Amino acid sequence: MKKDKLLMTPGPTNVPYKVREAMARPMIHHRTDEFEFYFTSMNENLKKVFQTDNHVLTLASSGTGAMEAAIVNTFSPGDKVLIANTGVFGDRFVKIATKFGLDVITMDVPWGKGVTGHHITQILDSQDGKNIKGVFVTHNETSTGVANDIQSIGEALKDRDCLFIIDAISSLGGMDVKTDEWGIDIVIAGSQKALMLPPGLAFISISDRAWEAIERSTFPKFYFDFLAYKKSLEKNTTPYTPAVSLIVGASQALQMLIEEGLDNIFDRHENLGKACRAAVCSIGLELFAEEDMASDLITSIKAPEKIDIEKVRKILNLDYDIMIAGGQQQLKGKIIRIGHMGYVDGFDLIKTLSALEKALMQVGYDIELGTSISAAQNILKY
Amino acid sequence: MKKDKLLMTPGPTNVPYKVREAMARPMIHHRTDEFEFYFTSMNENLKKVFQTDNHVLTLASSGTGAMEAAIVNTFSPGDKVLIANTGVFGDRFVKIATKFGLDVITMDVPWGKGVTGHHITQILDSQDGKNIKGVFVTHNETSTGVANDIQSIGEALKDRDCLFIIDAISSLGGMDVKTDEWGIDIVIAGSQKALMLPPGLAFISISDRAWEAIERSTFPKFYFDFLAYKKSLEKNTTPYTPAVSLIVGASQALQMLIEEGLDNIFDRHENLGKACRAAVCSIGLELFAEEDMASDLITSIKAPEKIDIEKVRKILNLDYDIMIAGGQQQLKGKIIRIGHMGYVDGFDLIKTLSALEKALMQVGYDIELGTSISAAQNILKY
Repeated sequence: MKKDKLLMTPGPTNVPYKVREAMARPMIHHRTDEFEFYFTSMNENLKKVFQTDNHVLTLASSGTGAMEAAIVNTFSPGDKVLIANTGVFGDRFVKIATKFGLDVITMDVPWGKGVTGHHITQILDSQDGKNIKGVFVTHNETSTGVANDIQSIGEALKDRDCLFIIDAISSLGGMDVKTDEWGIDIVIAGSQKALMLPPGLAFISISDRAWEAIERSTFPKFYFDFLAYKKSLEKNTTPYTPAVSLIVGASQALQMLIEEGLDNIFDRHENLGKACRAAVCSIGLELFAEEDMASDLITSIKAPEKIDIEKVRKILNLDYDIMIAGGQQQLKGKIIRIGHMGYVDGFDLIKTLSALEKALMQVGYDIELGTSISAAQNILKY
Repeated sequence: MKKDKLLMTPGPTNVPYKVREAMARPMIHHRTDEFEFYFTSMNENLKKVFQTDNHVLTLASSGTGAMEAAIVNTFSPGDKVLIANTGVFGDRFVKIATKFGLDVITMDVPWGKGVTGHHITQILDSQDGKNIKGVFVTHNETSTGVANDIQSIGEALKDRDCLFIIDAISSLGGMDVKTDEWGIDIVIAGSQKALMLPPGLAFISISDRAWEAIERSTFPKFYFDFLAYKKSLEKNTTPYTPAVSLIVGASQALQMLIEEGLDNIFDRHENLGKACRAAVCSIGLELFAEEDMASDLITSIKAPEKIDIEKVRKILNLDYDIMIAGGQQQLKGKIIRIGHMGYVDGFDLIKTLSALEKALMQVGYDIELGTSISAAQNILKY
């Protein structure tokens, strides 16, 4: 029997039926009270999930579009910025900022390691650190399974004249992001990760200080012009045709998140992360991310010696209808990544571990069946 | 009783149940054979609907994003371009091109009038016309109800060293667009119009000659970088996470279009356009668009003297659950627009006319009930 795919991936992730049903309703026009109802509800709940009083803008684009938008709206050619490059997505910030002619100071972090406020302070206090106008950090670096320490970086930046921009594309809605309390000027989120939606929307919160920078930015922009979105948002609308069905879905998904409660959501993910790490370690697998900074939304696992880990991934996908992720770029074939973000509970993890054990056995890895499952069960609160 | 809204608007338009059902299926991952199946099917059918052998790129953005993308990929700051400004959407090209520092020659056309190859030739042969590197025309100018004559413009541009770019955002899939035969270098289409999809996707076909220009363009770009999309398309994928559910829907909608047959689709829209125009004229209403160039996808109608036409629109929406559009910008309150594009048949038009008659009566317009309906019936092939 073929079952619906279980997505244990760092996006796209599973979308609840209620959200899919909402998106499948007959189309409505975007300049109507009915659309405004969904849009307003979404916007109110976005502020709660972003933990902010700031405006949160909604773009019809992938997360990468929103990363570019943050750069071209907030800076001008030649502006000096610091980017923590902790993996594929830190590197994407470097690529975009370089493409647009910013003066990019890259903080190259070995993959699997994370960044804290201490590391950032060191650079800002060095010769290189003068006149840095913005610091970019990926919150949940899905390519390596590391969660960078946004809170301590926020503290380190608190009294500096420097904007703090984070890619929370995969973390928002799954991990704590205290936008206002931690002093994050721009937070970028994507629809298809912890927010339990299909890809196609990006959300961006912008602080007052960032709006001042936006007024000064000299990059030409149109589709991504934040000032146009702000002006429209104040009238409960968007400057260009919004992705109506995705926004209807978002209003539903955010409602579900608020009903579960942010603290419960963060707890659930923390519990899933702990259980997953304990489970894979119980069968002798090694974690790729350094222990202190391992993400609770995604677990990266080193391929055991002489084991064809890509084959394991294929077995899970083709034989058991469970998608996990492989390594990206230089990590291809060297790690696998189990996502546990968004619409995922302990039973989904148990199912995945059960399949993982079987698949590892099939490729010749020595294992006693059930070991990782009971290790997870001992921790899971479901 | 409240019925589902009937969208007789220039987008978003009605989405068939089959398409909505496809989009509501459990989420799939985009780096899989399953996604590739939908993506390939969509791409093959896009070529048929675009009537081209060119690559057709798919962006997760609204049509406006694709208009910007066409400009920043194909030109460089200071390049001279000619833009036919025939309404809100011609003007949008002007705004974007100006914002990005192109040298814009604007051909201001009175709203309600259209553009032909003859008009374009006149400008290209004038002093102003020297060194023009690109000509931009809106195919179906929904703000005024005019369809510009793309075929004759294509002919006029055939032997000139000048790219031809059209906004076919609302026309593609409803009106004939012979991309290759008419020599159109870049055709931009949107999902939420004649293609019967929700908003959130844009499609762009690009000729070999345009690709040469794209190689030369000096604008920085990342999210909209056509070369990255081309490279990915050759591997049946996208550079950034695609809007998976919308693409699954698109593969379904395009399949339905191909099954109906392009000629049948163009006939249906031509017939709807003729019937709608005859119907509104039969009750003494005046058309806004000049007769020769009236669009078959949208009918713009002047407000009769002393009639509050916005009230008519409100009655249709709130009492009869039929959305038609009002006038934009300086036409607000002066015209209404009935869209008949995409998933619309003759019965939808009859229903709309029936409601329009009732609503006009309610606001004091003298009418014999049934007049416009029988006028439409005499023409409709359903």
